Amino acid sequence: MFVHNKRLQYTVRVSESNPGLANLMLEQFGGPQGELAAACRYFTQYLGEDDPGRKDMLIDIATEELSHLEVIGTIVGMLNKGAKGRLAEAVEEEGEIYRAITGAGNDSHITQVLYGGGPPLTNSAGVPWTSAYIDTIGEPTADLRSNIAAESRAKIVYERLIALTDDPGVKEALGFLMTREVAHQKSFEKALYSIQPNFPPGKQPPVKPFDGIYYNMSQGVGDLRGPWNSDENFTYVSDRADQSAVDGGDGRFSVQLTAAEDQVVEQMAARTMSDPQSNPMTGTDLGAGVVIAAPTGN
Amino acid sequence: MFVHNKRLQYTVRVSESNPGLANLMLEQFGGPQGELAAACRYFTQYLGEDDPGRKDMLIDIATEELSHLEVIGTIVGMLNKGAKGRLAEAVEEEGEIYRAITGAGNDSHITQVLYGGGPPLTNSAGVPWTSAYIDTIGEPTADLRSNIAAESRAKIVYERLIALTDDPGVKEALGFLMTREVAHQKSFEKALYSIQPNFPPGKQPPVKPFDGIYYNMSQGVGDLRGPWNSDENFTYVSDRADQSAVDGGDGRFSVQLTAAEDQVVEQMAARTMSDPQSNPMTGTDLGAGVVIAAPTGN
Amino acid sequence: MFVHNKRLQYTVRVSESNPGLANLMLEQFGGPQGELAAACRYFTQYLGEDDPGRKDMLIDIATEELSHLEVIGTIVGMLNKGAKGRLAEAVEEEGEIYRAITGAGNDSHITQVLYGGGPPLTNSAGVPWTSAYIDTIGEPTADLRSNIAAESRAKIVYERLIALTDDPGVKEALGFLMTREVAHQKSFEKALYSIQPNFPPGKQPPVKPFDGIYYNMSQGVGDLRGPWNSDENFTYVSDRADQSAVDGGDGRFSVQLTAAEDQVVEQMAARTMSDPQSNPMTGTDLGAGVVIAAPTGN
Amino acid sequence: MFVHNKRLQYTVRVSESNPGLANLMLEQFGGPQGELAAACRYFTQYLGEDDPGRKDMLIDIATEELSHLEVIGTIVGMLNKGAKGRLAEAVEEEGEIYRAITGAGNDSHITQVLYGGGPPLTNSAGVPWTSAYIDTIGEPTADLRSNIAAESRAKIVYERLIALTDDPGVKEALGFLMTREVAHQKSFEKALYSIQPNFPPGKQPPVKPFDGIYYNMSQGVGDLRGPWNSDENFTYVSDRADQSAVDGGDGRFSVQLTAAEDQVVEQMAARTMSDPQSNPMTGTDLGAGVVIAAPTGN
Amino acid sequence: MFVHNKRLQYTVRVSESNPGLANLMLEQFGGPQGELAAACRYFTQYLGEDDPGRKDMLIDIATEELSHLEVIGTIVGMLNKGAKGRLAEAVEEEGEIYRAITGAGNDSHITQVLYGGGPPLTNSAGVPWTSAYIDTIGEPTADLRSNIAAESRAKIVYERLIALTDDPGVKEALGFLMTREVAHQKSFEKALYSIQPNFPPGKQPPVKPFDGIYYNMSQGVGDLRGPWNSDENFTYVSDRADQSAVDGGDGRFSVQLTAAEDQVVEQMAARTMSDPQSNPMTGTDLGAGVVIAAPTGN
Amino acid sequence: MFVHNKRLQYTVRVSESNPGLANLMLEQFGGPQGELAAACRYFTQYLGEDDPGRKDMLIDIATEELSHLEVIGTIVGMLNKGAKGRLAEAVEEEGEIYRAITGAGNDSHITQVLYGGGPPLTNSAGVPWTSAYIDTIGEPTADLRSNIAAESRAKIVYERLIALTDDPGVKEALGFLMTREVAHQKSFEKALYSIQPNFPPGKQPPVKPFDGIYYNMSQGVGDLRGPWNSDENFTYVSDRADQSAVDGGDGRFSVQLTAAEDQVVEQMAARTMSDPQSNPMTGTDLGAGVVIAAPTGN
Repeated sequence: MFVHNKRLQYTVRVSESNPGLANLMLEQFGGPQGELAAACRYFTQYLGEDDPGRKDMLIDIATEELSHLEVIGTIVGMLNKGAKGRLAEAVEEEGEIYRAITGAGNDSHITQVLYGGGPPLTNSAGVPWTSAYIDTIGEPTADLRSNIAAESRAKIVYERLIALTDDPGVKEALGFLMTREVAHQKSFEKALYSIQPNFPPGKQPPVKPFDGIYYNMSQGVGDLRGPWNSDENFTYVSDRADQSAVDGGDGRFSVQLTAAEDQVVEQMAARTMSDPQSNPMTGTDLGAGVVIAAPTGN
Repeated sequence: MFVHNKRLQYTVRVSESNPGLANLMLEQFGGPQGELAAACRYFTQYLGEDDPGRKDMLIDIATEELSHLEVIGTIVGMLNKGAKGRLAEAVEEEGEIYRAITGAGNDSHITQVLYGGGPPLTNSAGVPWTSAYIDTIGEPTADLRSNIAAESRAKIVYERLIALTDDPGVKEALGFLMTREVAHQKSFEKALYSIQPNFPPGKQPPVKPFDGIYYNMSQGVGDLRGPWNSDENFTYVSDRADQSAVDGGDGRFSVQLTAAEDQVVEQMAARTMSDPQSNPMTGTDLGAGVVIAAPTGN
Repeated sequence: MFVHNKRLQYTVRVSESNPGLANLMLEQFGGPQGELAAACRYFTQYLGEDDPGRKDMLIDIATEELSHLEVIGTIVGMLNKGAKGRLAEAVEEEGEIYRAITGAGNDSHITQVLYGGGPPLTNSAGVPWTSAYIDTIGEPTADLRSNIAAESRAKIVYERLIALTDDPGVKEALGFLMTREVAHQKSFEKALYSIQPNFPPGKQPPVKPFDGIYYNMSQGVGDLRGPWNSDENFTYVSDRADQSAVDGGDGRFSVQLTAAEDQVVEQMAARTMSDPQSNPMTGTDLGAGVVIAAPTGN
Repeated sequence: MFVHNKRLQYTVRVSESNPGLANLMLEQFGGPQGELAAACRYFTQYLGEDDPGRKDMLIDIATEELSHLEVIGTIVGMLNKGAKGRLAEAVEEEGEIYRAITGAGNDSHITQVLYGGGPPLTNSAGVPWTSAYIDTIGEPTADLRSNIAAESRAKIVYERLIALTDDPGVKEALGFLMTREVAHQKSFEKALYSIQPNFPPGKQPPVKPFDGIYYNMSQGVGDLRGPWNSDENFTYVSDRADQSAVDGGDGRFSVQLTAAEDQVVEQMAARTMSDPQSNPMTGTDLGAGVVIAAPTGN
Repeated sequence: MFVHNKRLQYTVRVSESNPGLANLMLEQFGGPQGELAAACRYFTQYLGEDDPGRKDMLIDIATEELSHLEVIGTIVGMLNKGAKGRLAEAVEEEGEIYRAITGAGNDSHITQVLYGGGPPLTNSAGVPWTSAYIDTIGEPTADLRSNIAAESRAKIVYERLIALTDDPGVKEALGFLMTREVAHQKSFEKALYSIQPNFPPGKQPPVKPFDGIYYNMSQGVGDLRGPWNSDENFTYVSDRADQSAVDGGDGRFSVQLTAAEDQVVEQMAARTMSDPQSNPMTGTDLGAGVVIAAPTGN
Repeated sequence: MFVHNKRLQYTVRVSESNPGLANLMLEQFGGPQGELAAACRYFTQYLGEDDPGRKDMLIDIATEELSHLEVIGTIVGMLNKGAKGRLAEAVEEEGEIYRAITGAGNDSHITQVLYGGGPPLTNSAGVPWTSAYIDTIGEPTADLRSNIAAESRAKIVYERLIALTDDPGVKEALGFLMTREVAHQKSFEKALYSIQPNFPPGKQPPVKPFDGIYYNMSQGVGDLRGPWNSDENFTYVSDRADQSAVDGGDGRFSVQLTAAEDQVVEQMAARTMSDPQSNPMTGTDLGAGVVIAAPTGN
């Protein structure tokens, strides 16, 4: 069960209203790398997890992400507070309000007109949050890697937001939130490597020798070797002939159909056959100005 | 520039039509962990990348993923081939066609009715593919971790699909595709660790001491310690009082408004004030059967 | 700040695995009327709210909805638990696994193949949750009405789920969750009507006489009068002539353009003018079998 | 059957082109609270409704909303008319066109570049309209409440748009549209309360005593009592121990598995067990600059 | 202005309840090729159109499509009518209701559980309708071609639905709807070709010689010539060297940066440089069972 | 199998950084009419196609569209290159960075803050690409028409982008891409008309006389005749009585229910009946200031 304490995890002190900055902060509220995504990611893993250690860790961190969602949402709310009543109360001239709304230079108009200055669960372009952002698949050796990556991304987006503001209270709170992503990444890495083995993930062994081959699929000026494709680590295959039909077959495709299936397939083929010998007049001919009268009885 | 060779990277031999299985295979065609997502992920990173080694690796792997998209799409096409003409040519009784369409026991009806038996870019539930699945953010120390995780997830979904079929040709091709995810994961790991340092990702240093704290946010039977929250690795904070307002402030929020802003905020507050002293009649009263005549002149 | 207690708000006892039922339960986990939607709805309103009473109520209820999300998610997890390891460990014959996956008769295949048996944030058709479900607009006299309606809808969907299962533990927990929607509706109604006046919502007065007119736009057998369009409550307008151009104008549209604007508009009109006097041959003629050779030099 | 009359329901007179304002008006054309959403909401309820009075009312109002969609769409079209041909005909210098497109200060670029100056079914941020906005569930005591709330929201968004423009013709038409939402809300309220009882919605009775309890889930400075949680109306529960496991159980979760299910669950648990006694080296160690050569034979 | 007449455009007589068939019919109600998409497509074009003939035609056909939406929605409603009350009234045993819901063999469960048996604006997989289906761009020589294509697609999906049912009333109504798509296609073709010239669409002339070249990008067994790439109609380019850098340049990419831009680009490059000479240990090494103790002071 | 050649199909030379222009170019990268949509459209048709000529053509063009995706993505990357490192390295004052980000005057902020200056698969408003843009249905006489239309649209959006920039290298590359759409349209038209007959598309004949009727559904000032509704080509029906119930029936709807179905339908009707004789007090009365004390024992 969740309970709530009215003290924030981190005190939020904002120097002045700034709906344009508020809008950018939405990235970490309702954006793909934001705190709702983080909380939902770990919470759903927690529900599906049976390992006692990981289960405990996942709900600890999920709960903290919810508390971070509250911090970043509070920042958005404070930055919007001055603008919030403007449209609702409409005490200024219309022209002034219009200029204020459109003058912020980014998508803050949607926060103001559609969402009334509240913090909506969208990214900074106004795109609604979707659980398509969450890549949990219910296998811990994959999910923990997904979590590690997610923490890295969140850390970076916080860096970018920090670079955008000189409001000391906002900067400080963002610095805290950014740092916690680092701590969470550490925990998830410990949890991943305390499963042994964890690579390859899952249960099925890879098929030899394909797990040790690097296909040099793009060729030309710019080809470069490094540990990711070195002879030390991989068999490096550049010959185009060795890159296709690597099973030794003919590289074609086939399916065995029943007689009844064959019949409808052939019937459809006959009906929709294109005649390679023809050279029909087409809509481009008609459209390029070759005027021809419609046949009678159209 | 991309060019195409009519030989597949892996020969596809399917034993018999099976639209229900085709539908499940869509997960790796147009699903979140599928080959289109993989190809788009690495291709967009390639376009944004300036480091010569990573740029080369990303386009090599992106190109191979497109070739995998062709292999899995070909499998879907072959499994659907027998069913494809049935609706189009409609040579059976309607009742039989209806039973065939609905009897497959999963969502293959959408592939057949809406998409005509072709392989659509949807997952196995018919949900259209969206680039919201792609988590590229343009910072290599994060993006490489995202790629590592993505390869892990794709490996696992292939495992699950392999477990679902006993068609030897399908099993073999899926085994190849699964294995290549393992090889790609290796390359991305090598690329990540050949950047040094790569942790914490990005440029901004974490704020001490918050990168070394583990907040025990969920408490009760089931609390457990492990390397992810051990005293060796973390400062473990369980006291609720030490979990909130960790900056030492009051845990509240504030913003400094201008006088004009204050005025509209107050005006809106007054207009929408809720009176805690009242106990008004409500719609639930009216709806629970307390019949009261409408006032005259409504 | 949110904290978590490992005891659920309501004990969950499930009698047996049932992935098909689990899938239906997703409606109240990641569906539009489900608990994530409820929690996010009230939590975002809380962040944007300044009235102390409503702010407190909104976070009380938002927190409880998160705890409900945990209860329903736990039910989904328990119902899926038996099926969860099947694909991952793949100890059965492939054919059996395939039959088990597709035989449940609804979309549970996606929960199993893509999400590994965990509770995903989708509805029962596998559609990802989106914040487009949340209709908060930042005006309490509208938002409270939205909340009242949302609680009604959630109550009904719980009713339907209760009708689908005879597992006593599931039924009991669903009954609790259903009932809490009733309690929340009561609170939101009290909060709405403790704002006076709250109708019409907002600040701008309606334009007379249009707020008292009922336009009988659909006519024919089936027209019926009731309090929603009675003469007592409304002016009832059936005459088609009185339904259009109700401002007394000509019912047309116009805009004043500058000379430069006029010029490009006319230029575009000339370029794309359709000639009503022509009767051109078209693609349907060409496609209906009127074979005409392509002109030379195409 | 729908038929169309070329006179608008309200005459539209626009003073001058303004693509920036046009873009904001899209909120009520293709936005979540806009006229398409309203029309679709009532039209789908009409199709599913069997009660003769409600059925008639729903199609009356649905039809009027379509006519409103035409009015707001016409406003958008007129505001964009001057800008429409600019890109198409491209008679100005490129720099000027670019400045005109990007200088409007909001998202009008998408209306111009992608949609050619026509009114697209998106909101003001360019987000495509989705039927996820529609919350119809096929139970009138819930749907009517949803309609009441939807009319409130639409009324408010019109208020905001009215505050943004000083074009008298636009203001007047918006005032009409806003007012009609008020009239529709009245009709839906009459329809709701002419069903008796309508609370609780649906058929299943609430479970005592949970429909009369208010859980004070968020505690701290800011707790406040009002009619929504007063002792007069509710049992107010603040004790944390009385908020969890309210059924009197242990607050845990369980499911009875078959022996075969148990076996795969245990097998998966063993394979993915995390060792709480370990303290493994992790990727963060490797990434923080602890350089260690790869083992031979990688 | 739209008005409504209570007589349908086509009488709907359904022989018996069939929620499974109802679900498939949703393709033409809320699916991508369905009637809402058609109506919205032509209605938005009508609003943006200035040519008097096309404007009149577009609203004629848009209005008829709305009337078709009513017909197909009525069919869905009738097919669901028997199932509608079942969940709501819950007079049967739970087990029976569950079997009825899941036994239909397709996604009708969502229509019943979430939407209460009403016709929702989704496709047959439960995917919400989105205006992303509409490809109007505000240029008539493109939009009319889009309309022609849309009518073709709708005609085909109706064919498939007709093949699925033997209910004579449903079949007959679907036949009417299918046929009207044919009539509309004819009108749109006439409208397209009454603009002369209409090819190439738009205003900018193509760049010679690239409009007359066919690049044979895919090579191997299966290459085939026809009028779409014949020497008569195109210059056929197969030589790989002539397919890249067709402008005669080097096929590379470049941008001129300012000194300040150069500096940050180089700084980022240095920070994220991957060392091709290294062969670092990676997470796959750690995860493959190479157990190494974490360094002290982690 | 796809392979990649490091030379672009067209050399990209960009004169200077311009993140605002980069953002607009996204329309043809990740927008609905862009190159990913084109490549996916033809590639999925290729996989489902059995006709040898069309199959070859589709993969030729799909491959070329992937190469175009690389060209337009490279343009976006170059235009963003100067801005890319700014946020990452953060060497300027925060205020300057904020002004640079928000000053571009369109949605380029999202490309920079969320995507780090890389080319994301979104349109110019930041909306993620979705396969809902692709209208392939697996019937060549429809799909080829969809392709013809898609090429027209893409041609037009390129025209608009060309009009927005005076950078000669960008203009030249866009001119090439625009022209190739013209060439592809020609090929698709040849392929369509080499199927004979191709109209009406599909197999089912239209129902007479409905394929030859034009319903004048919208009436009033502005009615106009042309070849799309001329007496020469169509039977023109204006009489409202002849537009409804065109089958000669009563224009009503019906379904035959079983006795058990009838019973639950009636039960639901009784429970939710609205009383047309009542005039109940409603929430609008309560909300308009009619203060009434709540009944005791609420």
